[in-house]
This record gives sequence, structure tokens and C-alpha cells, in this order.
Amino acid sequence: MTSLPNNFLGLPPRYSNYRRARFAVLPIPYDATTSFQAGTREGPAAIIRASQQVELFDEELETECHKAGVATLDPLMPNMAGPKAMHEDVFAAAKKIVRDGKFLIGLGGEHSITSGLVRAVMTKHKKLSVLQIDAHLDLRDSWEGAKHSHACVMRRILDLGAKIVPVGIRNVSLEEHRFLKTVIRTPSASEGPGLLLGEGRGRSLALPVRKKSAIRPWVEVVTARQCHTDDDWVDRVLNALGETVYITIDIDGFDPSFAPGTGTPEPGGLDWYQVTGLLRLVAAEKTVVGADIVEVMPLPGQAVTEFLAARLAYKLISYVQTRM
Amino acid sequence: MTSLPNNFLGLPPRYSNYRRARFAVLPIPYDATTSFQAGTREGPAAIIRASQQVELFDEELETECHKAGVATLDPLMPNMAGPKAMHEDVFAAAKKIVRDGKFLIGLGGEHSITSGLVRAVMTKHKKLSVLQIDAHLDLRDSWEGAKHSHACVMRRILDLGAKIVPVGIRNVSLEEHRFLKTVIRTPSASEGPGLLLGEGRGRSLALPVRKKSAIRPWVEVVTARQCHTDDDWVDRVLNALGETVYITIDIDGFDPSFAPGTGTPEPGGLDWYQVTGLLRLVAAEKTVVGADIVEVMPLPGQAVTEFLAARLAYKLISYVQTRM
Amino acid sequence: MTSLPNNFLGLPPRYSNYRRARFAVLPIPYDATTSFQAGTREGPAAIIRASQQVELFDEELETECHKAGVATLDPLMPNMAGPKAMHEDVFAAAKKIVRDGKFLIGLGGEHSITSGLVRAVMTKHKKLSVLQIDAHLDLRDSWEGAKHSHACVMRRILDLGAKIVPVGIRNVSLEEHRFLKTVIRTPSASEGPGLLLGEGRGRSLALPVRKKSAIRPWVEVVTARQCHTDDDWVDRVLNALGETVYITIDIDGFDPSFAPGTGTPEPGGLDWYQVTGLLRLVAAEKTVVGADIVEVMPLPGQAVTEFLAARLAYKLISYVQTRM
Amino acid sequence: MTSLPNNFLGLPPRYSNYRRARFAVLPIPYDATTSFQAGTREGPAAIIRASQQVELFDEELETECHKAGVATLDPLMPNMAGPKAMHEDVFAAAKKIVRDGKFLIGLGGEHSITSGLVRAVMTKHKKLSVLQIDAHLDLRDSWEGAKHSHACVMRRILDLGAKIVPVGIRNVSLEEHRFLKTVIRTPSASEGPGLLLGEGRGRSLALPVRKKSAIRPWVEVVTARQCHTDDDWVDRVLNALGETVYITIDIDGFDPSFAPGTGTPEPGGLDWYQVTGLLRLVAAEKTVVGADIVEVMPLPGQAVTEFLAARLAYKLISYVQTRM
Amino acid sequence: MTSLPNNFLGLPPRYSNYRRARFAVLPIPYDATTSFQAGTREGPAAIIRASQQVELFDEELETECHKAGVATLDPLMPNMAGPKAMHEDVFAAAKKIVRDGKFLIGLGGEHSITSGLVRAVMTKHKKLSVLQIDAHLDLRDSWEGAKHSHACVMRRILDLGAKIVPVGIRNVSLEEHRFLKTVIRTPSASEGPGLLLGEGRGRSLALPVRKKSAIRPWVEVVTARQCHTDDDWVDRVLNALGETVYITIDIDGFDPSFAPGTGTPEPGGLDWYQVTGLLRLVAAEKTVVGADIVEVMPLPGQAVTEFLAARLAYKLISYVQTRM
Amino acid sequence: MTSLPNNFLGLPPRYSNYRRARFAVLPIPYDATTSFQAGTREGPAAIIRASQQVELFDEELETECHKAGVATLDPLMPNMAGPKAMHEDVFAAAKKIVRDGKFLIGLGGEHSITSGLVRAVMTKHKKLSVLQIDAHLDLRDSWEGAKHSHACVMRRILDLGAKIVPVGIRNVSLEEHRFLKTVIRTPSASEGPGLLLGEGRGRSLALPVRKKSAIRPWVEVVTARQCHTDDDWVDRVLNALGETVYITIDIDGFDPSFAPGTGTPEPGGLDWYQVTGLLRLVAAEKTVVGADIVEVMPLPGQAVTEFLAARLAYKLISYVQTRM
Repeated sequence: MTSLPNNFLGLPPRYSNYRRARFAVLPIPYDATTSFQAGTREGPAAIIRASQQVELFDEELETECHKAGVATLDPLMPNMAGPKAMHEDVFAAAKKIVRDGKFLIGLGGEHSITSGLVRAVMTKHKKLSVLQIDAHLDLRDSWEGAKHSHACVMRRILDLGAKIVPVGIRNVSLEEHRFLKTVIRTPSASEGPGLLLGEGRGRSLALPVRKKSAIRPWVEVVTARQCHTDDDWVDRVLNALGETVYITIDIDGFDPSFAPGTGTPEPGGLDWYQVTGLLRLVAAEKTVVGADIVEVMPLPGQAVTEFLAARLAYKLISYVQTRM
Repeated sequence: MTSLPNNFLGLPPRYSNYRRARFAVLPIPYDATTSFQAGTREGPAAIIRASQQVELFDEELETECHKAGVATLDPLMPNMAGPKAMHEDVFAAAKKIVRDGKFLIGLGGEHSITSGLVRAVMTKHKKLSVLQIDAHLDLRDSWEGAKHSHACVMRRILDLGAKIVPVGIRNVSLEEHRFLKTVIRTPSASEGPGLLLGEGRGRSLALPVRKKSAIRPWVEVVTARQCHTDDDWVDRVLNALGETVYITIDIDGFDPSFAPGTGTPEPGGLDWYQVTGLLRLVAAEKTVVGADIVEVMPLPGQAVTEFLAARLAYKLISYVQTRM
Repeated sequence: MTSLPNNFLGLPPRYSNYRRARFAVLPIPYDATTSFQAGTREGPAAIIRASQQVELFDEELETECHKAGVATLDPLMPNMAGPKAMHEDVFAAAKKIVRDGKFLIGLGGEHSITSGLVRAVMTKHKKLSVLQIDAHLDLRDSWEGAKHSHACVMRRILDLGAKIVPVGIRNVSLEEHRFLKTVIRTPSASEGPGLLLGEGRGRSLALPVRKKSAIRPWVEVVTARQCHTDDDWVDRVLNALGETVYITIDIDGFDPSFAPGTGTPEPGGLDWYQVTGLLRLVAAEKTVVGADIVEVMPLPGQAVTEFLAARLAYKLISYVQTRM
Repeated sequence: MTSLPNNFLGLPPRYSNYRRARFAVLPIPYDATTSFQAGTREGPAAIIRASQQVELFDEELETECHKAGVATLDPLMPNMAGPKAMHEDVFAAAKKIVRDGKFLIGLGGEHSITSGLVRAVMTKHKKLSVLQIDAHLDLRDSWEGAKHSHACVMRRILDLGAKIVPVGIRNVSLEEHRFLKTVIRTPSASEGPGLLLGEGRGRSLALPVRKKSAIRPWVEVVTARQCHTDDDWVDRVLNALGETVYITIDIDGFDPSFAPGTGTPEPGGLDWYQVTGLLRLVAAEKTVVGADIVEVMPLPGQAVTEFLAARLAYKLISYVQTRM
Repeated sequence: MTSLPNNFLGLPPRYSNYRRARFAVLPIPYDATTSFQAGTREGPAAIIRASQQVELFDEELETECHKAGVATLDPLMPNMAGPKAMHEDVFAAAKKIVRDGKFLIGLGGEHSITSGLVRAVMTKHKKLSVLQIDAHLDLRDSWEGAKHSHACVMRRILDLGAKIVPVGIRNVSLEEHRFLKTVIRTPSASEGPGLLLGEGRGRSLALPVRKKSAIRPWVEVVTARQCHTDDDWVDRVLNALGETVYITIDIDGFDPSFAPGTGTPEPGGLDWYQVTGLLRLVAAEKTVVGADIVEVMPLPGQAVTEFLAARLAYKLISYVQTRM
Repeated sequence: MTSLPNNFLGLPPRYSNYRRARFAVLPIPYDATTSFQAGTREGPAAIIRASQQVELFDEELETECHKAGVATLDPLMPNMAGPKAMHEDVFAAAKKIVRDGKFLIGLGGEHSITSGLVRAVMTKHKKLSVLQIDAHLDLRDSWEGAKHSHACVMRRILDLGAKIVPVGIRNVSLEEHRFLKTVIRTPSASEGPGLLLGEGRGRSLALPVRKKSAIRPWVEVVTARQCHTDDDWVDRVLNALGETVYITIDIDGFDPSFAPGTGTPEPGGLDWYQVTGLLRLVAAEKTVVGADIVEVMPLPGQAVTEFLAARLAYKLISYVQTRM
């Protein structure tokens, strides 16, 4: 007779003890600002349950990385005073984990939580690049009245001074398109004929753009279409990222066929081998210091998305741990 | 060849024109502060779609009340700056409808919207009683950091100076239980042996209670158990209500067997004939000046709840209109 | 090692053989022209699968009535030329069963199939009363351009010369309300103050009504509200029915809490003991010669409705068989 | 910033610590022998999640009973060697809890687990009555080749020497009907005209019945129909039960309208007030020494059943604790 | 405080006004005679709701094409007299739109509606090629008794004198296979060894085929397998199409992994970039004069398909508008 | 008027008669040992229903292979005494079919049934290779106490003396990884640098491995990653298989995007053309003597998986029949 601990991977105390663990999983069941379909608050619990079916042995790396210790914290409760208040709560909870020397892995919940997590990681790593797997840029300045909306989270991260490299993008607002004209990009990307997204053939839009401050934000976009047509997209990502990297994965970066459980599924996304191949290389060539997986919205009676997210989280742990 | 207008009841312009309509339906697809399951933002659209299957003729009253005019407004967009900001938006939208002389019917969305609706109605009707059909009191002072949470909405309404009569209550917090000791109740209700909920047999809780201000709030609770066991519960409600009444129906006032699509289904609730029988009497004996139906969370593939809500909304219209 | 035959009740050949069976179950997976998934067309297969979980022993009657033989025919394929063509197909299939001396039990599928079934039964039993358990009268003359629509099926049955006794009614169109004024009703029912539905208190509608022919249709309505408030509603049904009875059960006659899987769920319906109690009495005091259960629309992941329908069909068989 | 512990009721360590707790909740996510629909293995986790929405204050008893301590153990893993092996595992896990002096509350999972739980409780309380809320007797000797099937669990409990009082029964097999003729019943129940289920009017079945041993099993059945028609059914239950009582609640004892999430939903079951009213009286007049809630099968996207089960489990704790 | 208009893309009156709009979206919620819930009839409303999440800016073309005006008409009600009657209604509604000079975009509903739409477009454009994205040929002469069945719609369009180019085909009936031997094909396609589908290796079927009339129908089939293996499939489509093109997209032309919400999902279909790449080229090189998207059957709790369809419809508008 | 027989492909007696049929479909609705999500017991019925929508004509092969006869047997009932007992029942049922000279096609149900089917086929074909399409190796020696668990089925088949060729593998346990070091592999596969899975770059695991017997098991693994990156993976499979082949398809060998309905969906699997292309070649170059499709777990309201499985089963029949 045996029992199954209800934590990420279903680990016994030996491997899930917080003090001895290298990795700390922080569930944040928060979805107050999502636009359309609701339900990402169910994400963390669903991912954790699914993770208990993942083999602890990784057949790609031929190792068992849970032995480095993976602690699962109690879920962070939502703060309903508003997105700004919640941001502070996320920051406070994450900062403690970072201070304890753990590798932080946030499980969302909506994407807005990422700015709190990144801010916490930046208390330790000032110079940070953020690799963003996502269908949307999330670069609006404000959305539905909120600065800390999920639709603005990467803008807030730019405000913190981090570089960002969005990958898998395929739905962009006019506001974001205009904003991109104000940012710094890598030289290799600027060689194109002046098109910021690198693939358009439509008529150009003459837009007056003003710099907001002396310090210009730094963004390098890789669209989903580029991931499907350009052979060098992975190199572009690696070149654009600095040495120290935080990874935020909005599950809608995947094509909805692989991850249907998300609020605004956008056709034309990435597949399993594209994402895991990229993560493996980034983990091997950079220093990854934190990560999150967000916007998993469990579908009733269809567990595919949380299985993928659980597998992905452990892959990420394994890539990071194997490299060390 | 005919077409079906996408408004409440699927009415042609003749009956759905705002200027000529007596009733105005305001959809508010907002659920930012709900505690557990999400999805009430889908409620208004689902109710409106279901309403298009409701017969315009009411077989109980033998009338067609849609002829008084029922306009459906465009949905009010959520304000994600926080619950307080959303409250102001609801108030502003509703005040305009009240000022236009319409009978306001809000469709939620989470219960927190009701305080904005009631506040708007009170710009016209200063002395207001609110009949609340609900499983929960929603009388907390604050919840998860928010004063305008769904869990506090009736407390906010007491703050506005309205009387409230909660009916169908069956899940109460200790905080609310203590608060009830500070409020004014009708004489008939105070005859019991000091038990505020009137049915307990447990050991008493000695709690120090302080009045917060000179003006004490006025609450008369009718529990779900009383609705099932006391013959005079309807009379108690009618006695407790003043002349001018606003009706707010949290769909979880119904037993989950009748309305399973809601966030926190509580067993032991009211049935169709209890609620409609009460509404008919209240509409006949009082002056109803506004109403809302909230917390409808459409279930995937199970339309029972929105059908009930649509039927209920039209019943309410018919009761109000027939009385006039 | 055993196997489970895929027929109604999962009976072995000994009891499911058509030639020796008293009862013949005819599945009619019809709800119009789409190919596969959708609504009530899934009803018959779902009821048959659920029926394989029903005990063959009936604990109320303390008998095993399947021994009288219950054959399950292959499903009747839809005819998509239009509702009239389908009506003819249903009639032809059912007439053969009636001619073979079987007790016909139709499983729908939408309610429009009933007119074909009744027409077939009337080739043998000219003078027929039809007991209709239903939320809707289905007495429109035409609906969305079709005379053989589900919304008109009882009107077509009146055209055949049968009496009808609708029970559980709670959503009536103005057209149907007006039509009821032209029909013959039992003396006991006509004692009311001129209100055909017997319960209204609204303002009367002055409507000019013309007889269409010398032979007036015969209808006795028992509303759902009467089933909940009048003690003698069962007697009214029994008095209204003639000696030879066909029973058609639209599953929406039940309250949606008991049978949520149906296309237009109407609150305020009948419960299990009301329906089975009535059926038992009708089977005991009348000669029941055929029956159907229609409008079962299986919900994804929620089998309650088909379980109820399966149990109900076997109850009906048992009541009929025990009486014999 | 706060966090929510993932245990029954979401209790902080102070109240969920095993050593100090009076009540111990044992989740058993096992469904290997169920007949039809699968999924009760998801029951315990769903009930625990729903329980975190239940108010810790009970408005009926006006107390907070969680303060007596309610510990939640890690889920017991299934043993797939077969039902007999699983029975032994359940027994071993439960015996330890009983030995530790805790009040055992099992959360299923399928009903077969109850025999292991009862056997464990009987290591301490030799003379035990088992109150069984259920739609089915579960009194088969063997089912689909298994003695420890869910369909045989009460037969196994009779083998242990316990009395059983099944309540809410409404689907009985011929084998069980015959078996009932061999058992001992209370005098009041035996006064009927020889019909064991007390309500039949069908033709009698002449069946030869043989005693299996000198010690005859003791069973007192209260059918669902009796619960709806006989005023004294609660007294019959109380009279039949001995002083020391174990309570097993198969969720299908409830009508499917209240608890649709179960494998074989049977129409005509009990409602919330019938069950909780009975439990309160039993807890007040007897000594309840253990309990379980089983056969909860979470439906995709419809949480009504687990909410009811969570509320029920806490009601049971409150009734037991208040009495003490 | 803002509100969201309930039309395609959620456009304000300025861009959704019918008179000023270039594009007119006609929702046709038709999949036959049942009343409410079921299959593809839910498609148009779901697509429209999803469209309100689509960015108005297109990141591929770097334009905002909604400014050309996109009006959404009220849904066309089903005519249940039969498929022929419905065809006439669709034709009448569409003809008016064509006469008003709008670019017609039909949203289904089942595929049978396309013949009415094409017939309307041909009142203006006599010489028309129809590009059909589909898993099935829909070339039966009659199906389940109906000439205007969804399974016959392209046969009806051939009857109108249009050329058709089916793309993505992967489930063919013997009748259709035989019919293809009677049609005209492009020279490039006829070079194969006599195999109409171009990929078979099975034994040949000797079938007598007779021409029905002097005017032979014109069909060029591109199977799904060819789309996955032949590099020149897009060229074949472009060569086969005439100058003036109508596009009908049966959503099951996509692989079910991308569009699971459809009635008969066939494995092996097209992906997002295949379809949008083709559409962009067709829009650039031909004159597209009308389009429809059909057979979207919203799945409960899984919105992927309607999101794809909404995005696709706006892509199509953008390709058409950008080219102009 | 026509009717639809409820068997695989919906065939009339002429083609579904057992005596004359070449192929025999055995439904085995068993899922007692599955680890996580339950529901594969619903698989066979769902596949059979979906199969009735498959065209009898195969457009790839241009033949109608159902004419060889495809009989559908009654479902084999589960034996709940335990997995070993069920294994014997499956073996007995399958042996009879094999003895009757039929080509056996099992429809699961969980994967554990395959060992009984293979054992039956080996009564006729002593020297057998088993092609296993799967995400998991299922090579554990024992799982959750059971030797005949789904997680051990291929180990049991090795015990029978068959070779196995697992294809699509992407989740491996440490136990299985170690076991693989003890088995015989083809020379071509052993050329690698000692890595059994052929793709790892992690640190090696030094594990002591002992042979259990003189006869070493024979296994050739092709991982999912190899199917996506190695051009010669199909050749490796063909080389590894002997002349006589049994095919077992765990539906989770497909990527979850194509077959979401399964208990433990693993990202990174095979697509439709990979699997059917492989099957066609194996059927052409080897002698296929039996097959099964298992682990189909129908999702509520999402029929994609059973459609794929039905199509796949008929493809397999067609490939086998065409070759003959």
C-alpha cells in the first residue's frame, strides 16, 4: 500500500522538501484580467495533477533530474483589489523564493503574473533577457483600464529594463505595431526593408512615432510564420538573447492543435519539437535563471494541454539541470 | 425568408427600439473577482440566446408583455483597473438608463455589479428595499483585498442606505454571522430565542459586537431551510420589504439541480415555483423599480441554467408589466 | 467469458428475438439533415446503451417483464427530402410492426416522429386517445415552413382524429392558446371561468376564432402548474382518456433537473414519481397499445437523461405487461 | 499575500495536523470494478478542491467544527492486482488510522472500498450497524467474477458480521431480491404481507431459498419510494440501527438531479434535506464511529456533485462533533 | 465605460453600417429541423463571438482592412419545409446582397447553403469557378432522399454551370468516384495513368459511365494526400481556376487537429499555412467575388474551431481587400 | 425507408455475417488497470458508431474492401476478478476467432488486452513479430501490483516469445530503460555509441544488468523523435520485423493533436500519414495476421479520436485485403 503526494511530479518528501530543493514551483491560480474565456485559475492544479503521470526518467537526456529537488509551494491566493495589488503579491512571494536561492518556476494563471516573477528575479540578476514564447506581444501600454493586464505584461517588463525576445507571435495590435518602431533591435534583424515584422507585403503605414525617454526599450520579434519558413530563426533567438535568461511560456505560443486549452487560441503556432528544441539550446548556451508557464486553461474533459504543460515544465527543469 | 434579431427575446425593431421600450436589458459580462470557477462573463450572451426560444406569450398570465418594449443594450465592457473602477462604470451606464425612465434589468456577470445598478436606481428612488435571492449573504466587509468583490456586494448596498431581504441563504461565514447581530431586523423575526438565523441548535457563540455608526444597517434574512419548512416565509418577505423594491437574483439562490451553471453551487436551494411565486406576489403588492439576474455561468454543453434565467427574466418583466 | 448483446436491455436472443417478442423497440435517430453529431439523433443509441445497466427485475412490481420478449430493430434511417417524407417512412416502418402484432415502442429522435407512429397504431385502433407528457403543446399548424415539424406533431395527430391529453404543459404560443378555444374539452374541465388553461389571472384576450370543419378536435390540457397544485390532476387525466391509449413522452415534460438533456429545457416540469405514478395507473385502468419516448438529446459527459429514459421505457413495458 | 493549503477544507497546519486532529480524511482514488461509466478515481481530488469553498462556519449549527482538527492524508494508490488485493490495502491503511484513535472518513472512489474501511473500524467496534445511503443494495455474492466488486460490497460487510440498513434503494437484482428472503429483519418491517420490499403489487415469485449458515445476515431495507411516501421512514432507520454506527454514502443515493456525477444515475432518489436530516438525527441519537462518501464521478465542466459531497462531508463532521 | 457591438469583429457603426460596407456577412444557422441546440447551427454565432477577439490590424499584411466596412446581417432563419425550400430562401437573401454590390460572406451552418449563395453570385458573374476546401467531394446526386443535402451541394453547383476545384479531399464515395470519370479535367491533370484521383494503386474498377447531357461538368480534384506530397499542388489549383472565383471553405478541409469542431472529422487534412497561403495567392491572382465558411460545429467548452474560422474569415477579407 | 445495422461500418448481413467474413472485429470494453484518466471502456462502441460514417470505398486504393466480409462480435464483458482472469477471457475469445480462420481485429479498451490477443494468434503463428505503435514501451515487469497491467503488456508478449518493434516511443521509465540493456536488438541498431534509445546526450547511467534466462528478449525501439528526424526509420521498422506480423496500435502513438482522446496524452507523437504510410508498407511486404487498436478514450462532445480510429481500422483492413 502506497500513497501519492499531491505535488509537482508526485515526489516523496526526500525530493520535494523546500529546503533541499534546487527548483521551486509556485502555483498562481489567478485570472482576473483575461479578455475572453475564463479558467486559467484552474491551470496550476491541473498541471500538477498531470505532472504526476510524467516519468521521472527523461528518455531524451537519459537522466533523472527530479533528484535535484523540486518543491511545490502552496498556491498563491488571488488579490482582488486589482491587478496592481496582485502584481505586488506575486513579486513578494517570488522574491522570497529567489532570495532563498531557488530556481523559480511559476505556474499560471494568466500572463500578467510574469512581471512580478521577472521583477523578483531581477533583484538578483540585474541584466536580464526574457525569452517569451507567445502568440501575442502583450506590449500594450494599458488594456481595459489596467496597466498590469495580461495584455501589457511584456511592456511592464520592458519598463523594468529587461530585453525581450518574443517568439511565435501571430496576432498583433496596431498599437503594438507602432510601438515596435520605437524600440531597439539586433543588427541582423534590421537588415530587412524597414518592415518591423519582417514579412509584410501590404501597403506601408506612415505613423509618427516618438521616443518616450532616453532609454529605448529592446525587443526582437520572431513571428510564428518565420518559425515555419526561416531556417535561421533559432539562431536569431540565440543571438538576440543575452547571457542571463528568464523564460516565459504563454501556452498559446503552441499551435492550438497541441495546446487547445487556452483563452484565445490562435492558429499557426509552434509545435512540440520547435519549442523543446529551442529550450534545450537556450538552456545549453545561456544561463537560465527562472521560468514560468502561463495561460493554461483546462478544458472540461480534455486534458491534453495540462499534460503538455507538465511535460514541458519537467523538460525545462531537465534541460537546466543537465547543463549545470 | 425571415431573420432573427440577436437581442433579448429576439424581438423586431418595433419592440426592441430603445426609445420606445419600457424595459432596458443591460448585459454586463464581467467576472473578475469570482472565487472559484470562472465563466459568468459568458452569462449575458447565453441568456440572450436562450431567450430567443421563450414564447412571447405567457401562459400563466395569458398576455404578451414584450409589447411594452424590451430594448437590449450593447454589452458593457469590463474595466480591469479593479473592482472599484468597474463599479463606477456600471453605475454610470445604469444611471443613464434610469434617467431615461427605463425599467433597468441587469444581466451578469458576477454579483458585484449589483451595487452599481442599485446605486443608479437610488438616484431616483431614495428609499429602497432590495430583495436578494441568493445562497450566500455577500455581506463580508472585504474579500481577497477587495471592497467591491462579489462577496461584499450586499454590504456595499447597505452602505448606500438600502434595506435588504436575503432569501434562500444557506452558506454563511462567521464574519457575516457576527455582523448580523449588529443589524436591525423586523419585529416578527426578532421573536426567536436570540438566534439570528432562527434555526440553530448548536452551542452559542459569545461574540463581542460593536456598532460601526449611528445608522444601523437593516437586514432580514430568510434561510433556504426556512423556505422549505416555514409556511409563512413568503409573508415574512413581504412584511420586511418596503414599498419600493429592487430585485437581485443570484442564480445560486436556486437549488443547483435547477440551475447547475454557477460558480459555487450550494445544495438545498429554492425551486422554480418558490421563486416565481414570490416574484409574482412582490410585483403585485410592491412597486418594483429595477432588477438583475447574476452569476449565471454557462456550462459547456448544458444549457439548462441560461434557459431558466431567460424564462425568469421574462417572467419578471411580465409580472411587473401586468401589475402596472 | 461472456458478451453483452447491443440491444435494449442487453437481452440474449431468447428474449430479444423479434418473432417471439411482445414488445418491439424502434430507434428513430432523426433530427434532420446534418450527417452525424447533433442533438436528439443521438438519443436512441444512448438510451439503448444506458438500458443495459437497468436491472431486469423490477423492484416495484417484483417481476421480470423482459421475459415477455423485447426486440430491438435496426435504427430507421432519416429521410432528408423533408419532414413529410420522413413521416411516411416512420409510418411505413411502424405499420409493419403493428401488423405483426407487436407492442410498438418508438425511441426518438425529435417529436415529429410521433405522428407516424400514432398513424400506424390507428390502422389497428381507430378510436385512440393520446396521452402526451410534454412541456409544449406542439399544436402549431405549421412551423418554420413545415407541417410535420416537431412543433406541430400533436396538431397532425388531431388531424388523424385522435383525442389528445397533454400533461405537464408550461410554454404555450399565442397561436396555440387561440387554437385551444376551438377545441372540445371534457365537462369537468370546462367548469372554470372561461380560461382554457385554467390558471391565468391576466387580462383576457378577445380573439375571433373560427371552426375549420364540422369535426372539432378534442384536447384536454393539464398544465405543469396544475400537476404541482391540484390534487385531482391524475383523475382529470384518467377521465379525459378513452379506453384505448397511446402514450407519447417528450422528455422535456420532466423538469430539466431530472432530464437536462433536451433541446428546449423548460423549468417547472414533472418529477419521476409523478410520471411513473401516472403511467402505472393509466396502464392499469386503460388499454395501452403503443408508446414512444422522444427528444432525448444526450449531453456530452452527462448520462442522467438517457438513464432516466431507459428506466422509464422499461417501467412502461413492465406496467403494460403486469396488467395484462 | 496568502496561500491556500491543498487539503480538505483548505485548513492551515494548526487544524490539519494529523496528530492533533480528531478527524482523518483518507482519499482513495480507485475505480477498477465499476460497471459502466468510469471516473470515480477523480472523486477524492474533486471533493477536496470543492471543500475549499465551503464556509468553516456552519450556519445550521452555528459552530465552527473544523477546530476539532481535520487531517487529510495522501491518496491511497490503487492496487491493480485485483479487488481482493485492493481490499487488503484499504484495510491496512484504515486500520492504522483507527488505531491512532481518529474518526475515519473515506473518500471514494468506488463503493468496493467500504468493506476495507468497515473491517478496519470493526477491529475496534465489534458490534456495528452500517447505515447505507444508496440506490443499489450491492448485495450480490459475486459480480463479473469478483467477490470484492462494488456490486458486492454490502454482502462482504454482512460477512463481517455487521448489521446493514440500506436507505434510498430503487434498483434491485433478482439475486438480491431472493437473498433478502433469507435475512433477519426488524419486527416492525416484517408485518407486511410477505413482501420484502414492502411495496410490490406484482405477481409473487416462488423461489426456493436456503440458509447458508447458522448465523443469518441482518438487513433492513428502506426503499426510495418509502422515503417519499412513508412518514415514519426515519424512525424505521433509527430503530433498525444499533448503538454504534458506521455511515456509508453512495452518492447515487441522492437523486441524480442533486448529484448527477455518478456512474449509474437512478431516478427517484433522496434530496438534500432528507439525507442531512437523517444524518443529523443519527449523529444525535447513535454513536457514529466512521463514515465514507463514495461513487462521486466528477463530470467535465459541472462541479455540482463534488460541491454537494464536500458540503455533506463537512455536515457529517459537524453533526458528529456537535453531538460529542 | 465602453460597450462591445455584437457583430463580426465587434465593429462600431462607422465600420459595420450596411450601406457603407464593402463586405456583408450573412449568418445562416441551418442544420435542419430541430429547434435549438445541435451542431452547425451554432456555428455563425460562435464565429461572430470569437471574431471579437481578432485584432483588426493584420500583422501579415500590415493593414487594417475592417475600414473597408464589414456589415453583419441578422441571421437567416431556417426553413424547415425541406432542403429545397431552404435553398430558395438562401438564394433570395444572398441575391439581394449581391444586387446591393456587396462582397458576400456566408457563415454556416451546413454546406448545403453554398448552392444558394453561389447561385446568387452567378446572377452577376455568369462564368464562375468555385474553389472548394473540403474533406469530401459533396458530389452525390442525392442523399438520404434529398437533392439539396449537404452531401450533394457541389453537384448542384455543377448543375448551375460553374467549374469546381475541390482541394483537401480524402473521403470519397464509390458513386462520386464513378461520377468523376464523366467530367472534364484540366490537361495537366489528365496525364496520369487513367486514375482520376491520381494516387491509387488498387485494382481498377470497370464501371460503365454514361454522359448525362451535352454539357459535361468540369471538376479538378486535388486530394489532401497530394497537398502533402506534391510540390505543385498550388499551381494546379491556380491553373484550374478561371478568372472569377467563389471560395467555399468546409471547415473539415482542415485537419481535425486544427478544426476539431465539425460533424465528420477526417484525419489527414490541411493546415493553417497551406490554406491561408493558397487563399492569399488566389486572392492576388484571381478576382474573388464571394465566399463562405461552413460546417463549423462548436464543441462544448472548446473554442478552437470558431477562433480559426473567425481568423480565417478576416484573413480572407484582408487578402481580398489588399489586392483591390 | 432503410435502416442502419449497428456493427463496424454499418454493414448489411451479407457483408457482416460471421461465417462468410474474412475479418472479425472483437470489441473489448475493458479498462480496469489504467493509471490516470478512465474511460477506454467506451472506446469500442464509439469507434463502431464513428465507423458508420466511413465511406466503404477507399479513395487511396480505389477499392471496396468491406466486400471481403467484416463481422462484428458482441462485446466481451469485463472480468473483474483481476487482470490475470481478464487476460484468460480475452485469450479464450480470441482463440476461437483465430481457430475459425478469421483475421482478428481487437478494439479496446486498455492495452492490457493485447497479450491475450497475441497469445491467441500465436496458437497459429508460432514465430511472430509485433509492431507496436505507442508512446510508451509498456515493458514494466509489474505495475501497481499487477503483472497483466496495461503498463506491462509488451513485457508479457516478450514472455510469449514474440519479437517486438515499438514505434513512436517518447515516455520511458528508468526500469524500462535498464531492461532495454538486456535485450537483443538488430545489428543496424546496435551500431550507435552504446545508447539504447539512440538519441541521448545526458550523462550515462551505470547500471548492473543481469540476464534472467538463456533466451533473451528481442526488442527494437524506434522513438518518436527518430520518426521526426531520421529518414530511414521506416526501413528500420521493416528490417526489424519478421515475416509474420501482428500490429498493435495504442492510439497514444499518435500525437495528441490528432488523437486527443486517450488517458495519458504525450506530446511529440506521430501523424496520420506517418502511421498509415507505415501500415501500408508493412501490409505489402509482410504477412499481417492480426491487429488491435487500443486506448481510445472517447472525450465528451469531441469525436475526433474515434473517427480517426475507425478510419484507421478500415485502412488496415483495406491494406491487408488489397495485398492478398
